[in-house]
Formats: sequence, C-alpha cells, structure tokens
Amino acid sequence: MTSAELFAQIQKKKSFLCVGLDTDLSRIPKHLLSEDDPIFAFNKQIIDATKDLCIAYKPNIAFYEAEGIKGWQALQKTLDYIPKDIFTIADAKRGDIGNTTKKYADAFFKAMDFDSITVAPYMGEDSVSPFLEYEGKWSIILALTSNKGSYDFQRIESDNKALYTSVIERSSKWGSKEQIMYVVGATRAEDLAEIRKIIPDHFLLVPGVGAQGGSLAEVVKHGMNAQCGLIVNSSRGIIYAGSGEDFGKAARVKAKDLQLQMQTFLDASFP
Amino acid sequence: MTSAELFAQIQKKKSFLCVGLDTDLSRIPKHLLSEDDPIFAFNKQIIDATKDLCIAYKPNIAFYEAEGIKGWQALQKTLDYIPKDIFTIADAKRGDIGNTTKKYADAFFKAMDFDSITVAPYMGEDSVSPFLEYEGKWSIILALTSNKGSYDFQRIESDNKALYTSVIERSSKWGSKEQIMYVVGATRAEDLAEIRKIIPDHFLLVPGVGAQGGSLAEVVKHGMNAQCGLIVNSSRGIIYAGSGEDFGKAARVKAKDLQLQMQTFLDASFP
Repeated sequence: MTSAELFAQIQKKKSFLCVGLDTDLSRIPKHLLSEDDPIFAFNKQIIDATKDLCIAYKPNIAFYEAEGIKGWQALQKTLDYIPKDIFTIADAKRGDIGNTTKKYADAFFKAMDFDSITVAPYMGEDSVSPFLEYEGKWSIILALTSNKGSYDFQRIESDNKALYTSVIERSSKWGSKEQIMYVVGATRAEDLAEIRKIIPDHFLLVPGVGAQGGSLAEVVKHGMNAQCGLIVNSSRGIIYAGSGEDFGKAARVKAKDLQLQMQTFLDASFP
Repeated sequence: MTSAELFAQIQKKKSFLCVGLDTDLSRIPKHLLSEDDPIFAFNKQIIDATKDLCIAYKPNIAFYEAEGIKGWQALQKTLDYIPKDIFTIADAKRGDIGNTTKKYADAFFKAMDFDSITVAPYMGEDSVSPFLEYEGKWSIILALTSNKGSYDFQRIESDNKALYTSVIERSSKWGSKEQIMYVVGATRAEDLAEIRKIIPDHFLLVPGVGAQGGSLAEVVKHGMNAQCGLIVNSSRGIIYAGSGEDFGKAARVKAKDLQLQMQTFLDASFP
C-alpha cells in the first residue's frame, strides 16, 4: 500500500484510526474461552465491529507469541480475515544483524504478508535495511515511544540533540517516505512539532492516545500533514471496552467515538 | 542457573563457548531437507557433536520464526534436547512496553523455559523489568553489538559518554548481576576494558569472534574476570563448517579448536 492509497482510505473512511489487537487470553470475555480458537474468535468480532471505522489493524506480536503455536495460528487467521484495503502492522519491534533481520523480514512480509512491521533502531542501519528491500512494505521505526522508559535513553542529548532526533535524522536517509514511518508517542505532543520539522512528509504511527493520556487534538495540531500523515493507535481502550457477550458493540462505541473526532479534524483540514 | 553454577560448568568443561544455532534451511546440508523436521535434525547433530565442548547454546529466534509454526516446533524440540546443565539463550532481542514485555517473558521463560533472553534497551526500564521478575532467569541486554550499524547510534556521545555506556550504567541498576548480562561485541576489544570498569562482575555475551573478525585473546585480556565472566559465541563458523553428511564432525573440529584455545586461557587464569 502506498502513502497515497493510505491517504485515500483515510479520506474515504474519515478516519486515521488503528485498532491495536493486543489480544490477551486473561482479558478477553470469559465466554470465548470455550471456543476452539479464543484469540481468533475475539479478533474476528472486533474486526467485524470496527472495520468500517479504522484504516489499520496492529496485532502486537507478543500476545500471540506468548500462546505458542496456537497463537501463531490465531495471528495468521486474523491477518487473513482483515479486509485487504486495511493496512496491517506487525507490532514486533524486531531488529538484528543483517542476515538475521532478513529472516524476520521473510517471516512477516513473505510468510505472513503484513504490510508493515515495527522496528527497533538500536543496532543501526544493517538491522533495518533488510526490511526495506521488500517492495511495497513498510518499516515503522521506533523513534519516541509513549512509555515511561522512553525517558531512559531516547531523550539523552548529544550536541543539544535528543537520541530520538538522531534516530529520525539518520534513519530517514536509509529509505524513502514510501518505505519508512516512525513511532512517535502522543504523550508529549509538542515533541511532534519538532519531529515534523525534520520529517514533514513521513507517516507517523502514534500510540498513547486514550489509555496512556495523550490528546488527539494536540496530536493533530502538531502532527498532521498534507496527506494526514498520522495513524493513531488505540488498543486496550477499544478492544477491552466491554467484557460481556456484547464486547464487539462496546468496542464499536469506543472506535466510533474516536472516528467521529477524527472526522471533525479531517473535515477541517481536507474540506 | 546462577553465575556460580555457570562458572562451575566453565571450569568443568574448560570452555566458555556458546554455539549459536542460527539454523537456516538454505544453508544446512541438502540431505537433511528430506527429513520430517530438517531444522531439528540439523540441531540435534550439532548438539550431539558439540555438547561436551560448550557451556551454552543460543538459537537466534529469527531463523525459527521465519519458518512459521514448523520453526517454533523445531525450536521447542531443540530446547528440550539440550542437556539441562547447558545454559540456553533465546537470542530474540525483544523489548516493548511493560504489559507487552510481560507476554514475551511468559513466552520465553514459562512456555519455552529458556534460561535467558537477549533484550533491546531502546524503550528503557519498563521494557526490560518484566523479564527480571522471573526468578533464576537472565536478561542479556544489548550494549555494544558487533555489526556495522553499531556505529550509527550506540557510539553517539553525550557528555563524553557513549550511548552504550549510558545503557550499561543505567540498566545495571535495574537488577543484580545474577539477573543481567550484556551483549558486547568482540570487534573492538579495547572497548571491553572500558566496559569492565563499569561492570567488573557481570557476565558478558560476546559475539563477533571468528566470522566477524574479533580476537579471542583480546577478548580474554580485556574482558575476563574472577568468574571468567565471558560467554563467547560462534554461530556460522561452527555450524556451517561442513556441508556434507559429516557436518557434525566438521562442526566439532571448529568447536574443539575454540575450546582448546579457551582451555589455555582458563588454565592460565584459574590454575
């Protein structure tokens, strides 16, 4: 999927919402646990309830890996079930030396056919470049994350430049804006303005709105560009909105609420 | 396994060798491809041929993940086949926000029962601490890797201090030296001396000897401590030493060569 195609989806659906499929057996409604594949049964209903409201789904791979082979089977079924016009993100945060990263790229882009993967930058260019060799696929590089630990290293300054700024500056030269996006947390939206000075045109994957306290209005104000340029993720706030048999409906209410807010912002920027 | 138990194994076997099981279907001997489970068939013979010469095995998870469900099955069978007195390292380089890292910890420490996992530090303390909550398990944090990309960010200096130094200084406070080890590449052994000033007592996992050009003598000179404190990894140099039916024998020759060198250093330091 190109950035233009992604923007077309955003305009069509009036949404730049990504639903995070952090499907945790200990948190899904109890009545699903008797199903053959509770993870997929949950995801299927979440997808049915939200697919007209979002432009991306992001399974966090840890939740599937934790369930072993059944988890990987559920992940593949989930990926197959997501409509083809919706962008898919393997939230895997992978990264290793070149010949090894090649294997991760094969796993997520060839065996599983995800549109994109999140990538950890610590090991540098050769830990990312094998992902970039897959045409039409995206690497979403961790820049500034939304967790408390982001203060440990990402904000360390060298020559008045935070590490995450160096990560963006250097890594944005490894590929084009049709190959690379960045993870930028919503918790301090003013950082977004600084990041937009470096990469005005790249798409950003923004976690931290909702459960983690980020403001959608601030994210839009500082982060939106001419192609929208934002994919805003909500995971737990949507998928665990309900705990009964009507959990799909409860998830839809939360997703619809975010989509309507996004529609207002999109209508204002792209009338 | 405690550090004392690991040191006891090192003294018993006169070796601090780790064999990296980076098992790649495109590189293993062709005659194995007709086996039911070629990956496990390969690993089994490598383990049989080297288990008296090494104190650790390190499957790099990418190679298993790339083969999907069959890969995960081969990984589990491999782990079950490794003798219990040999330290096992899941080279997974995982790291995510707290509730997600918890899932990775469950996957590798509970479902699969590895002794240790390699961990990427970029997301900070809460991306590592769930691994530390598993008693008797180890987190091996990426500090200074041996690949070319290690120059992109790991050596960025702030107040005359390289990022990898900050990573070691801060993260060594997150847990004890019975919980944390560090990945330190062998390619510039003089860095080891600097690292030993910060963490004299921690175990280090050292890749980059052999195929990547690092010198074992330099690693020992600058990195060995009172408990040896070194686990030196060789992957491709050992496991792909042969390509015929006698590949196990060829791997043994390479492993034995390294073990004998290690024995000389150990005899000198711990007579």
